[in-house]
Amino acid sequence: MAQAGKTDVAMKGGGYYSLATLGAKHVIEGATPMVLKAVAAAADHAQREFTFTDMGCADGGTSLTMMRAAIDAIRTAAPKLDIRVLYTDQPRNDYNALFQIVYGNTDFDTYLDEHQRVYVAASATSFYRQIVPDATLHLGFSATAMHWLSRKPGNISDHVHMVGAHGAELERFAEQGHRDWETILLHRAAELAPGGRLVLVNFARDEQGRHLGNTGGVHMFDTFNAIWRGFVEDGTISEQEYRNMTLPQYYNTVEEFGAPLLETHGPVHRAGLRLEHIETRIVPCPFAADFAAHGDSERFAREYIPTLRSWTEATFFDALNRARPGDERRELIDRYYSAYQDRVRADPAGHAMDYVHAYMTIRKHA
Amino acid sequence: MAQAGKTDVAMKGGGYYSLATLGAKHVIEGATPMVLKAVAAAADHAQREFTFTDMGCADGGTSLTMMRAAIDAIRTAAPKLDIRVLYTDQPRNDYNALFQIVYGNTDFDTYLDEHQRVYVAASATSFYRQIVPDATLHLGFSATAMHWLSRKPGNISDHVHMVGAHGAELERFAEQGHRDWETILLHRAAELAPGGRLVLVNFARDEQGRHLGNTGGVHMFDTFNAIWRGFVEDGTISEQEYRNMTLPQYYNTVEEFGAPLLETHGPVHRAGLRLEHIETRIVPCPFAADFAAHGDSERFAREYIPTLRSWTEATFFDALNRARPGDERRELIDRYYSAYQDRVRADPAGHAMDYVHAYMTIRKHA
Repeated sequence: MAQAGKTDVAMKGGGYYSLATLGAKHVIEGATPMVLKAVAAAADHAQREFTFTDMGCADGGTSLTMMRAAIDAIRTAAPKLDIRVLYTDQPRNDYNALFQIVYGNTDFDTYLDEHQRVYVAASATSFYRQIVPDATLHLGFSATAMHWLSRKPGNISDHVHMVGAHGAELERFAEQGHRDWETILLHRAAELAPGGRLVLVNFARDEQGRHLGNTGGVHMFDTFNAIWRGFVEDGTISEQEYRNMTLPQYYNTVEEFGAPLLETHGPVHRAGLRLEHIETRIVPCPFAADFAAHGDSERFAREYIPTLRSWTEATFFDALNRARPGDERRELIDRYYSAYQDRVRADPAGHAMDYVHAYMTIRKHA
Repeated sequence: MAQAGKTDVAMKGGGYYSLATLGAKHVIEGATPMVLKAVAAAADHAQREFTFTDMGCADGGTSLTMMRAAIDAIRTAAPKLDIRVLYTDQPRNDYNALFQIVYGNTDFDTYLDEHQRVYVAASATSFYRQIVPDATLHLGFSATAMHWLSRKPGNISDHVHMVGAHGAELERFAEQGHRDWETILLHRAAELAPGGRLVLVNFARDEQGRHLGNTGGVHMFDTFNAIWRGFVEDGTISEQEYRNMTLPQYYNTVEEFGAPLLETHGPVHRAGLRLEHIETRIVPCPFAADFAAHGDSERFAREYIPTLRSWTEATFFDALNRARPGDERRELIDRYYSAYQDRVRADPAGHAMDYVHAYMTIRKHA
C-alpha cells in the first residue's frame, strides 16, 4: 500500500524493512524483470536522455532496488544517455522522507552516486494530470497506486468498498473507474516518447474474483464492513456515517484494464498505446506468513492491524460527523481498529491481506 | 535568508508574509527585472523546452511572484515552449512545505494552473553538484543561498564569521570561497544550454565594505561574537566551544565574483560563461523599518531575534561540546539569543539586518 507509514521505517537502522513494507517491496521486485525488458526496448528509441517516472512513489523506499536495476539496465543498453528519475505522488506525500532515503541519509541502500549523469527529482503532480512534457517519457512505472479514484462517485449503502457494491452503486464506481483509467492512460500517451513503455502494477480483481484481502480466507473488506455495520447496530455511529465510509477505490478486472488499449477506435488506442502484456499475480501477506511461522495470535493481531489502518484510517475518520469533537472521532476510530484486532486475536485463521495485482506492459507506438 | 522558518508562515491565513520572509521577498522582487530580461534573451535559444531552476528555493514562498512573472515572460517570448520549473535545495530542506505552497494548498497565491504545459518538480541535489543534464538549462536563478560553503575550511580563533577573520584564517576562507564559487559556476556551465542565463543574487561585501548586518549601524556579526565571547569570559562555554562557532559562509566582493568569469584563460571562461552585469544593492531590514514606525523597543527585540536565530542556531548548537546533555545545549542556546534580545531591547538604535547582495547576470556563450 503506497500510503503505509514508511517514514518511521526509514529512520530505523540497518536497512531494515518492516513487514508493512515488505509486501509492497515483493510486489515491485516481482515486476522488475518486466521493467528491465521494457527499459531495454525503450532505450533503443531514446535520444539524449532517458526519463523514468515512479508514479505514486510514496517515500521511494520500496522501489530502490528496482530503480538500481533499471538504471544499470539503461546504462548498459545505451551508455551515452543522461538518466532522469522523477518520483511522483500527490502534494501531501512525504517528500522529505523520499529525499532522505534516495539521497542516502538513512540506512536504506540507495543507488544514487553509483553512476554519473543520473538526475533525480520529484513532482507533486498526480497521475490524473500530465507530469512531464510531451514525448519526453521513456519508462513510466507505477505500483499499487492507481486504484485510488480521482473522486468518490457516491456512497455505497451496504458496504465500504466497491468489491461489495451492487446495481447502480457498483455501476457508478465502474463508470468512474473506467473514466479514470482512460484519463491516466491518455496523459501517459502524451508524455511517452515513441517506443516508450509503461510498466503498471495495479490492484485488480482476477479471473477467479480474488482481490486484495480476499483470496480464499477471511474476506478483509467484508470484515471492515461487518465491524462498521456493528457500530450502527450498537448505536455508536449513525446510518449516514456508515454510508459515508466508502473507499474511493476501484479494482479493475483484466478485461477492464485491457479495454481502452484494445478498442481500436477509442482515444487511448488512437493516442498510440498498445497492450504488450498483462497477467495477474498474488503476493502473499507477509504478516500471515509470519504468523504461520510464530503461531502467536496475539502478536499477529497486533502487527497485522496497523497495515490495514494505514490506508483506511483517513476515510473512516472523514466519514464521521464533523459535529463530533476531534477527540471523539479519534477515539471511535481507535475503537474500530481495536475491534478488528480482537477478531483476529480470537480467531486468526484465514486473516491475510494478500495482494492481487495486474502486471502490465504498455508500449507507445514508435 | 533561505533557511528562515517559513513553514509556519505558509500555514497562516490570507497569503500573509511575515517580516522574516518579507526581506527575502524584496530581494527577489528587486531581481525580477533582471530575470525577465534574461528569460527573454534565453528563450530565443530554447528549442522545445525552457527549463528554469530556483537553486536554494527553501519553501518557494518568497519566489512565487517572481516565478509567475518569469513564466508569463517565457510564454510571451516563446509561446510554443514547454516550461519546466525545478526547485532545488539540500536534502534536508522542507520539500513538503514547498509542494504545499506551489500546488496551492496554502493561502499563498501560486502561479500553477495559470498556464498549460508548465511542469514543476523539485531536486535535492545541491548547487555544488550538477542538477540537470548537460545543456538543458535556460535560466538558473538563486537568491541568498550561495554564501554557504561546501565545507568549513577551519575555525576562526577570534570571531564567528569570515567578515571578522584575519591573516591565514581569512586566507583559508577566501581560498574555500574561491574554489566553491568556481565549482558552482562550472556545474552551471555544464547545465546551461547555449544562450542560457544565470541570475544570481548572492550575499556580498560591497565597494564600501558593507555586508549583511553591517551597513553603518551596529555590526551584527561583531555582536554575535561579543556575546559568544562573553560566554567564555563568564565560564559558560570553553575556549574550544567558542572557536567551534565559525559559520561556514563566505561573502565575495564584486571582484571575487567577477574574477573566474573574466580570467580569459581560466576554466569558467573557457566553459563559456560570460559576466553580463553585476551590481550591489542594499535591501533594508524590515524589522528595523517596522521599529522606526512603532518605536517599541521591547517588540522590536522580540520580533528581530528569531530571524537571526533561524540561520545561526544550528551552528551554535553544533559548536557546543557533545559531552553536554542535549537539554543543556539547548538551554545555553536559548540563553545566548536572550542575551542578544536583551541588548537590542536596552539599546535598539542601529540594530538592523540589512541585506547586502551582488546581483549578477551571467550568459552561456551561444
